[in-house]
Amino acid sequence: MTTQPDTIYESRRIRWESRTSLPLTVASLIYLVAYAWPILDPSVRDRPVFDIVIGAAWALFLVDYVARLYLSRRRAAFMRGNIVDLGAVVLPMLRPLRLLRLVTVLAVLNRHAGSSLRGRVAVYVVGSSILVLFVASLAMLDAERGADGATITSFGDALWWALTTVTTVGYGDHFPVTPQGRLIAAGLMVAGIALIGVVTASFASWLIERVAEVEEEASAATQRDMQALTAEVAELRALLIARESQGPPS
Amino acid sequence: MTTQPDTIYESRRIRWESRTSLPLTVASLIYLVAYAWPILDPSVRDRPVFDIVIGAAWALFLVDYVARLYLSRRRAAFMRGNIVDLGAVVLPMLRPLRLLRLVTVLAVLNRHAGSSLRGRVAVYVVGSSILVLFVASLAMLDAERGADGATITSFGDALWWALTTVTTVGYGDHFPVTPQGRLIAAGLMVAGIALIGVVTASFASWLIERVAEVEEEASAATQRDMQALTAEVAELRALLIARESQGPPS
Amino acid sequence: MTTQPDTIYESRRIRWESRTSLPLTVASLIYLVAYAWPILDPSVRDRPVFDIVIGAAWALFLVDYVARLYLSRRRAAFMRGNIVDLGAVVLPMLRPLRLLRLVTVLAVLNRHAGSSLRGRVAVYVVGSSILVLFVASLAMLDAERGADGATITSFGDALWWALTTVTTVGYGDHFPVTPQGRLIAAGLMVAGIALIGVVTASFASWLIERVAEVEEEASAATQRDMQALTAEVAELRALLIARESQGPPS
Amino acid sequence: MTTQPDTIYESRRIRWESRTSLPLTVASLIYLVAYAWPILDPSVRDRPVFDIVIGAAWALFLVDYVARLYLSRRRAAFMRGNIVDLGAVVLPMLRPLRLLRLVTVLAVLNRHAGSSLRGRVAVYVVGSSILVLFVASLAMLDAERGADGATITSFGDALWWALTTVTTVGYGDHFPVTPQGRLIAAGLMVAGIALIGVVTASFASWLIERVAEVEEEASAATQRDMQALTAEVAELRALLIARESQGPPS
Repeated sequence: MTTQPDTIYESRRIRWESRTSLPLTVASLIYLVAYAWPILDPSVRDRPVFDIVIGAAWALFLVDYVARLYLSRRRAAFMRGNIVDLGAVVLPMLRPLRLLRLVTVLAVLNRHAGSSLRGRVAVYVVGSSILVLFVASLAMLDAERGADGATITSFGDALWWALTTVTTVGYGDHFPVTPQGRLIAAGLMVAGIALIGVVTASFASWLIERVAEVEEEASAATQRDMQALTAEVAELRALLIARESQGPPS
Repeated sequence: MTTQPDTIYESRRIRWESRTSLPLTVASLIYLVAYAWPILDPSVRDRPVFDIVIGAAWALFLVDYVARLYLSRRRAAFMRGNIVDLGAVVLPMLRPLRLLRLVTVLAVLNRHAGSSLRGRVAVYVVGSSILVLFVASLAMLDAERGADGATITSFGDALWWALTTVTTVGYGDHFPVTPQGRLIAAGLMVAGIALIGVVTASFASWLIERVAEVEEEASAATQRDMQALTAEVAELRALLIARESQGPPS
Repeated sequence: MTTQPDTIYESRRIRWESRTSLPLTVASLIYLVAYAWPILDPSVRDRPVFDIVIGAAWALFLVDYVARLYLSRRRAAFMRGNIVDLGAVVLPMLRPLRLLRLVTVLAVLNRHAGSSLRGRVAVYVVGSSILVLFVASLAMLDAERGADGATITSFGDALWWALTTVTTVGYGDHFPVTPQGRLIAAGLMVAGIALIGVVTASFASWLIERVAEVEEEASAATQRDMQALTAEVAELRALLIARESQGPPS
Repeated sequence: MTTQPDTIYESRRIRWESRTSLPLTVASLIYLVAYAWPILDPSVRDRPVFDIVIGAAWALFLVDYVARLYLSRRRAAFMRGNIVDLGAVVLPMLRPLRLLRLVTVLAVLNRHAGSSLRGRVAVYVVGSSILVLFVASLAMLDAERGADGATITSFGDALWWALTTVTTVGYGDHFPVTPQGRLIAAGLMVAGIALIGVVTASFASWLIERVAEVEEEASAATQRDMQALTAEVAELRALLIARESQGPPS
């Protein structure tokens, strides 16, 4: 009653999205390998295979975006609602965002995680935190490695930096110095605020629920009273009908 | 029932405020340009046009404040409730606060953002975060640029500093050293705490609502029981009236 | 129903506390001046007047603590519940804590702040944040000023450090190096966590309440249904009684 | 009604766990001494007694883990649900985690802490924060002391570092440089996020409850209406039965 669906999804696009879900996830995983490998091992950087794989995966993502746009009834609304997808497809600078499609893998994990809402939120929080930390570390290492005065020059440093940033600790022993690195950091800081928000909200929801149980018991008592009353009225009615069926009083 | 209006607005002042809303927003935008330009491009700093525009906009803000104060029935309460406006008009040091009037632009954006409360909160959070980051960066750059030992000497640095501060990450690679810069930073830190608070609260509200849905369903069941009972009682009454209308039992 | 009083206060002690409230607040203010002055102006440090005033105020606090302990029915519970007061009176190291008694000034301010719970929480949060920042800055300056490698050597630095700490930003441009300074910092960090918690909780409470209003309206509808049903049953009963008073059907 | 038990515990394992609780807590305390002593006082590091005690305690933990696994009905679920225990027993790197068993001491403390849920949460938060800070400081000192460029070289530094990290302040005056130290820091940062979450949630729960009291009163009024209605219907029924017992109207 209090929840409004934010978007009305259309059937044709939904069918497309459910059919392409598995192939695009596989393409994202291959893209992840082709993206991560030359960053982690700079000696293979110049091999053309990585550029070819990345180009092919990008072509797939582009085709998928165009197809979803074409299949949407309200195209302007679709473009506004999928602005991140558009950016990831069009802007080379936002390439790492393409990997966020792997968050859909978490939906599969969640099918095995039982049905409690907080349990599913926990799977999403832990899963996407690890994914975001990994992708941000890769992108940061790629952006910073060659810069003057860079303090992030190995994957270990990048992962450590990402961790101190997403938790908002921010020691300042490692930090980005290039504009692109700072853009990645901005994204990670926003993710950190959201992470703190979700963790806090989960605890708050759990605690408020436990505290509310006493009140619920009182409410359950009201419900029991209600049922007792209904039974009483039904009995009363049966009594009247029984008198009625004795025939009109003579 | 649980919400108390914090202030009783008066009709004359409200009419003034709704009529001056558009011109003052335009004046704020012009003020923003005249304020930002010489900071971003120090070579034009000495041109008198910026001082003239800033002075004219300030005169407008002053006239508006005095008019609103004059049109208020309870003037002391108005001054207490608009202490930020007063400071922005009177103290030259708090000049950047005049730009916060642009937050009213968000109210216009919100008319197009649908009616969900959390949606409107999100527009305000994102919109005012961007505005506050931009204004704080400008003011910080203006305050710090010439100082001894300053670490914030370009707009890029100032924006990066503002971002690490509002998210409470605080690497410490850039930080203010002048009293005025520290005052700006203090405002931004308080904004950061508020930002974390609002984001967390939004997640908590969403999560608690979802969890509460099960209970709502139970409550809806009670309501259905209620309606069934009402129907039963009405039927019972009809039955009695029907007997009555047969005439007194003979 | 869901709120349990954490402590049962006893009448004799409560009377003592309400009578000594004003004199102790005045003593705390004098103590604040005598504590702050020689820290802010080291040239007067050796004058005996400050030590005398501090000693006299301490004697008052000690007498007050002993009197409250004597007037309590359950003394062990009193000592456990007022462990901070005990520490502030007994340990010279915790002297700054005596100033926290000034938080009671906020209770007076709150009498003029209207009756909304969140409004009163806001007065406490803002008031005690300012007090804690001021006291922690004084204590920190006192602890650090003479230390080797100290980075906090002026009141401005101390206040700036306190602000970056309580908001958990923590640039690291100023930080304590002495054990006593680190103890003060620990207290301030814990206060910072609490501050974020209270601010977030206030936003969450506000947002959840607004979202709950729709549900409340539904609940009010149920209540209206209830009253309609009650009226119907009462009418039914009157009908039966009216028939009854016509005498037994003949 | 809204709470689902996350795990179905089995009776045999529960009996084992309740019987071994005290001996294992004692073993953990001895383990803590044998773990902490050579870290705090490096001169005794080479004495074999500490290795012997640590080895014996580890053997006990291993036996306990195997016994609990053997006594579980659903072993795969047990292993998944106790992954931290498994890591602490099997991986030498995670040895400090064995000390987290001491959190069970808090359950004993809680028996004396009254019955309010928030009170018990507070005991857990304060108790486990102190334990985690102490254990993380020890482990960090052990990991960092000998490293090149280490900034954490005394227990005081380690404790101070742990405090600035768990509160997410992160000055950056001390930070880990070894991979093992960074792993410990990662755990502590996650604990910090959880700590902020729990503190915030407690305040939120308290505030929301207070605000909800007005609504509860309205709800209590509904309940009173309900009882009045029930009484009225019962009276109505008694009236009908009384008429019935007068014999059928002649």
